[in-house]
Amino acid sequence: MKKLINDPANILSESLDGFGFAHRDIVAVDPERRFVRRASTKPGKVAVISGGGSGHEPLHAGFVGYGMLDAACPGQVFTSPTPDQIMAAADAVDSGGGVLLVVKNYEGDVMNFQLGAEMCGRETATVVTDDDVAVETSTYSTGRRGVAGTLVVEKLVGAAAEQGEGLAALQKLGAAVNGQTRSMGVALTSCTVPAAGKPTFNVGEDEMEMGVGIHGEPGRRRVKLASASAIAAEMVGAILKDLAPARGTEVLLLVNGFGGTPAMELYLMVDAARRLLEGAGLVVARNLTGSYVTSLEMAGCSITVTALDARLRALWDAPVHTAALRWGR
Amino acid sequence: MKKLINDPANILSESLDGFGFAHRDIVAVDPERRFVRRASTKPGKVAVISGGGSGHEPLHAGFVGYGMLDAACPGQVFTSPTPDQIMAAADAVDSGGGVLLVVKNYEGDVMNFQLGAEMCGRETATVVTDDDVAVETSTYSTGRRGVAGTLVVEKLVGAAAEQGEGLAALQKLGAAVNGQTRSMGVALTSCTVPAAGKPTFNVGEDEMEMGVGIHGEPGRRRVKLASASAIAAEMVGAILKDLAPARGTEVLLLVNGFGGTPAMELYLMVDAARRLLEGAGLVVARNLTGSYVTSLEMAGCSITVTALDARLRALWDAPVHTAALRWGR
Repeated sequence: MKKLINDPANILSESLDGFGFAHRDIVAVDPERRFVRRASTKPGKVAVISGGGSGHEPLHAGFVGYGMLDAACPGQVFTSPTPDQIMAAADAVDSGGGVLLVVKNYEGDVMNFQLGAEMCGRETATVVTDDDVAVETSTYSTGRRGVAGTLVVEKLVGAAAEQGEGLAALQKLGAAVNGQTRSMGVALTSCTVPAAGKPTFNVGEDEMEMGVGIHGEPGRRRVKLASASAIAAEMVGAILKDLAPARGTEVLLLVNGFGGTPAMELYLMVDAARRLLEGAGLVVARNLTGSYVTSLEMAGCSITVTALDARLRALWDAPVHTAALRWGR
Repeated sequence: MKKLINDPANILSESLDGFGFAHRDIVAVDPERRFVRRASTKPGKVAVISGGGSGHEPLHAGFVGYGMLDAACPGQVFTSPTPDQIMAAADAVDSGGGVLLVVKNYEGDVMNFQLGAEMCGRETATVVTDDDVAVETSTYSTGRRGVAGTLVVEKLVGAAAEQGEGLAALQKLGAAVNGQTRSMGVALTSCTVPAAGKPTFNVGEDEMEMGVGIHGEPGRRRVKLASASAIAAEMVGAILKDLAPARGTEVLLLVNGFGGTPAMELYLMVDAARRLLEGAGLVVARNLTGSYVTSLEMAGCSITVTALDARLRALWDAPVHTAALRWGR
């Protein structure tokens, strides 16, 4: 295992300390490291809280800040945060407007966020994301997995919360955004969980995992390596078949690297995906490219498409000021 | 070779097309793909142009935009751009204030930028960056290599150019920033140049290349894998020995991933580097963390330290609006 680490047991705490120092103008790390919160909160605003296993950075702590999340609870690598982390985060950032929890659809996350919500004794609502079209159930999920589309939900819901939207309306918005968002991924290599010390899965030198999950879970099938255009065609095809947007629909395209993929390759995938979407009569009105929802150092990428309307487009454009996303302010 | 590509011969053009589409609000790609330029330029401002071999993205095209570069000339992967690319870029963005060229110290780059400067028949000045303390000469360089510190030079010089500074003053500023900047890198794995199809170098499962260059060139020595703290101590030690800043000096810390390193590990290195710098009596007044000056998918990172003063700190804080760096506007 080749990693820039000291002791696998301390990766999360040392990394959080570095993150907290690097972005001390935006966030504060809880002294017990149960959550990362905004440096300042706005009284009465609904608090938007997310979290999940670590190893997907910058998701979620990199999205804490103005216009997006109020707090994020980091579990150990690929391990759900505990209910008391969620409770502590809610206590720290709920300023009277209630708490919206954004949770990726994995059994451990769903259970622990639910327990945390009950324990905190506050007004809460939950949005569960399940944007991955690759498989219907998977290693850690009943139903579809929540993957990179979670970023889109967090951005749009976070912008609406900043504008003063109430808890029930935000829950409805989050569910709607999730319902208009689809993703699919491909892995060229595995990641290695530090505590395990060996690759999560084995994939041949001429193979890839089509439809992979963000923990290296199996996808649709193990296939021979293909060209970027063929890979993009399969992923965009699966997304559009499921999303079924009308011709002329404006969409947001997110090409997301899994951690070990160079920017050159991601932009090459943008070029391929854009042609496919335009060929299907869609308008790529907004886009984001980069390694935002990662699987440690896994090589590969996912494509996410969200069908936009005027309101969602405006929420995407709304100011955001976080460690990983920053515009308009 | 596992990459998200179609034909190795078309990687650069397809990637540039994706980049140009993704950031069409900020940049325009020359139809012949000789350069990436700002969507709009300011009359009379000194044009700041950089470039070099591709494979280091987001350097340099990701730094084209308000407050940083006016144009970047991308060569093929790890290959210098040609003189006519530099000439074409100068023709496109020189609006009467002259042209400042920022060039990393590699023989091919220095030669081709010089030829381009002569051929364009414009008023030009050049800043050559050579911030890498690892080795005194290397595979492609006579003298020290220009590495991640180039980002710092481009940011500070770009901000000063935006504020109306003249050509001679900018050249002096760039040379001063380079003179106050030191870097050193470490590689845990090699990168694979697409046209070569195999790893640039071989490194054992328990080894790393200390002092590696950004093309996978040899560093100081091949050593056994060490802890993150020990690695940071060697790199920061070499940097401070060479830079020799007075106690109490404010510094900028850049922890830069080489492309295949997860954010968790980079932030862990921030934590380690910060402790070392503070232990040496320095004040880490500004910092930047991420994969900004990469070597395709190489795993590893570099640490860069720039000694700041009030003016340099203000230039760092000045607004920038590019694909890869964006703040304050």
